[in-house]
Amino acid sequence: MTKPLRIALAGLGTVGGGVIRLLDTNGALIARRAGRPIEIVAVSARDRSKDRGVDMTRFEWVDDTTALAQADVDVVVELVGGSDGPALTLARTTLAAGKSFVTANKAMLAHHGLELARAAETAGVALKFEAAVAGGVPVIKGLREGAAANEIERVYGILNGTCNFILSKMEAEGRDFADVLAEAQALGFAESDPSFDIDGVDAAHKLSLLASLAFGTQPAFGDVAAAGIRHVLAADIAEAAALGYRVRLLGLAEAGPGGLFQRVHPHLVPVSHPLAHVTGATNAVVAEGNFVGRLLFQGAGAGDGPTASAVVADLIDIARGEFGPAFAMPADALTAQGPADAGERRGRAYVRFTVADRVGVLAEIAAAMRDAGVSIESLMQRGAHADGSVLVAIVTHEGPERSVAQALERLRGSQSLVGQPLWMHILG
Amino acid sequence: MTKPLRIALAGLGTVGGGVIRLLDTNGALIARRAGRPIEIVAVSARDRSKDRGVDMTRFEWVDDTTALAQADVDVVVELVGGSDGPALTLARTTLAAGKSFVTANKAMLAHHGLELARAAETAGVALKFEAAVAGGVPVIKGLREGAAANEIERVYGILNGTCNFILSKMEAEGRDFADVLAEAQALGFAESDPSFDIDGVDAAHKLSLLASLAFGTQPAFGDVAAAGIRHVLAADIAEAAALGYRVRLLGLAEAGPGGLFQRVHPHLVPVSHPLAHVTGATNAVVAEGNFVGRLLFQGAGAGDGPTASAVVADLIDIARGEFGPAFAMPADALTAQGPADAGERRGRAYVRFTVADRVGVLAEIAAAMRDAGVSIESLMQRGAHADGSVLVAIVTHEGPERSVAQALERLRGSQSLVGQPLWMHILG
Repeated sequence: MTKPLRIALAGLGTVGGGVIRLLDTNGALIARRAGRPIEIVAVSARDRSKDRGVDMTRFEWVDDTTALAQADVDVVVELVGGSDGPALTLARTTLAAGKSFVTANKAMLAHHGLELARAAETAGVALKFEAAVAGGVPVIKGLREGAAANEIERVYGILNGTCNFILSKMEAEGRDFADVLAEAQALGFAESDPSFDIDGVDAAHKLSLLASLAFGTQPAFGDVAAAGIRHVLAADIAEAAALGYRVRLLGLAEAGPGGLFQRVHPHLVPVSHPLAHVTGATNAVVAEGNFVGRLLFQGAGAGDGPTASAVVADLIDIARGEFGPAFAMPADALTAQGPADAGERRGRAYVRFTVADRVGVLAEIAAAMRDAGVSIESLMQRGAHADGSVLVAIVTHEGPERSVAQALERLRGSQSLVGQPLWMHILG
Repeated sequence: MTKPLRIALAGLGTVGGGVIRLLDTNGALIARRAGRPIEIVAVSARDRSKDRGVDMTRFEWVDDTTALAQADVDVVVELVGGSDGPALTLARTTLAAGKSFVTANKAMLAHHGLELARAAETAGVALKFEAAVAGGVPVIKGLREGAAANEIERVYGILNGTCNFILSKMEAEGRDFADVLAEAQALGFAESDPSFDIDGVDAAHKLSLLASLAFGTQPAFGDVAAAGIRHVLAADIAEAAALGYRVRLLGLAEAGPGGLFQRVHPHLVPVSHPLAHVTGATNAVVAEGNFVGRLLFQGAGAGDGPTASAVVADLIDIARGEFGPAFAMPADALTAQGPADAGERRGRAYVRFTVADRVGVLAEIAAAMRDAGVSIESLMQRGAHADGSVLVAIVTHEGPERSVAQALERLRGSQSLVGQPLWMHILG
């Protein structure tokens, strides 16, 4: 057996501990598969004294995380997090030192992926990040290699487990968002400051990486239009169900002549679509290719075990000498595309208004839709809330998104509306 | 750009034509991803004069397929089929000539995979077969690389699109097997001699490859217990639905201390399981790993486009210099395991009897179950057929399979039974 692949591990939180535990548990099997042992030799984290449930004395402890780049290792694994700061410094110094770099850090890659991919190519080393998207699900590999023969027409999926946990619990139990969020926080499924997850930022980071891999474009996180699930009501989920849909927060990207389209938004997913059956904290990604058709990758989107599985899969690739290009092609071959105009897209929409219970409201909404050229497929008005407000939900026929935006613009400031309308796209 | 990867293509049927069409259509994109162009230079098939809808004059024509191994190429792609004969000769001579070999031939690999993997290692070339299992779905890569950090506890899935097409049509339309098979044959979804598909042989070939990849065992096709869907009635599907299940032909493999368990059999799949929602000719494979949990890979299981996508994905890997071990580890590291004793397995079962409509039948069945120690969870008896026979369907509590086998043995030859009982396992 050839000599071990030597690893430095930065960050000893849940995932870092999972990586150590995984290599302890499956080490012999992994050595058979990788052709050589994979050995952690140096570690670094903020707090040396913390009990992590595994013997840490066997590893060299490095106080300064960024100094791991100078350790006598082949690969640095970064599980520190943060789009800049120590993680980015470590990435740059590791690649500059001619060592491979493995990370789960979607935020850093969304912002600095192109620079880091160039640095890895210059050094002739690997930059790998399977754990950055969809946890344990090998979807980065699926796009970079498995679907590599295809022009990808569209990539989309459930990229945030916290949101899917909340939405599927709202669906199963008929409860409202705030209520379920509080429970998710108590259970540890949502952060005490949940904004990153529930407002779609985390999914947007991941989507920008998937889009780059799928379309051969430079990661363009700044062009992702992101919205979250804060404003989805239990009543919206019930209306959707009555119409044959489930509500899911989807990240969706398409490349076209008009530019790169990237959006994170709550969608209505037909029950006949596999994503409608993805519940709980599971992640799932669909890639549609011009030869392969629709591919689906699904599994646990977070957690120490799945994420460690993805990190170590990258290490096995590196141990096998399979470095691959970080974004599926050389960094200089990635094109810079501007954002597509969402108004040009055609689709069906669900628009829900909370309205005052008074004469003429429906006529006002219907007139705004008509004047903007929006064709209504169905309209539901349901009971009155305790506060006297009423829900009106509309499903449109297929048409340009611009028309729906114009209709909503016409209704802005109307005394008939209570709060903002909720616009969800229907996955077609 | 470095020099092209030169390909010889054996077999110009549907898939071979798809590979040519794919490289014609996506060639520039593939060259960006692979780092070099992929070029077919030589081809061979039975009939030179046949019109294949693409210009064949640009390729060197080789009359003797097995002579392609001597062509001036880097890789031979075999799409001839057959477990032995020209395909096997070509595989052996290609690898012996120090060229990489890509194939969609599950039957050949199920029978000769170990020998060919050894030959590829000896020659230091690649042996790749993504297209051999689940068409365009990158599940070979998913197991060999994506899930490589895990001890795989179980691998199972819908491996035959023809059977899934038939079962889901029976389910949707309440029609019986023979009727739907005839339609599938008319539509070209089933062969005129459909036995290979509907009796589970094709799925068994694929399962033996998945099991080897998942468990680090030598491919052991001879140890797969295979049954098909011939004896599934529309009434069975209806009973299953009433109980919250869908009927799917699953290949399922597990490794344990008692040996390697491999079975292709119709199963009851709970509607809460993603495989219950896989309809039509789609394939889907689940791998359960000790760290990653449950991974699902899903997509088109056949057809020229998806299969060509998988073949060319293998070629891109080879163009990138990523050869990998054929069965996820060196051939000599694969262990030889005997078959596990199915009787030792514990599970729940669906057993359906067609019975004569007369006094005492239920008592006889119930007594046989009791005497074999089978605990009955539910029993349904439904109406009489035109021929006077009646269906009795039983769902058992969890118990050893041996007990169910013993109960059926006790009832063998009973005058109360019309034809063979149907035993389906319930996916747990």
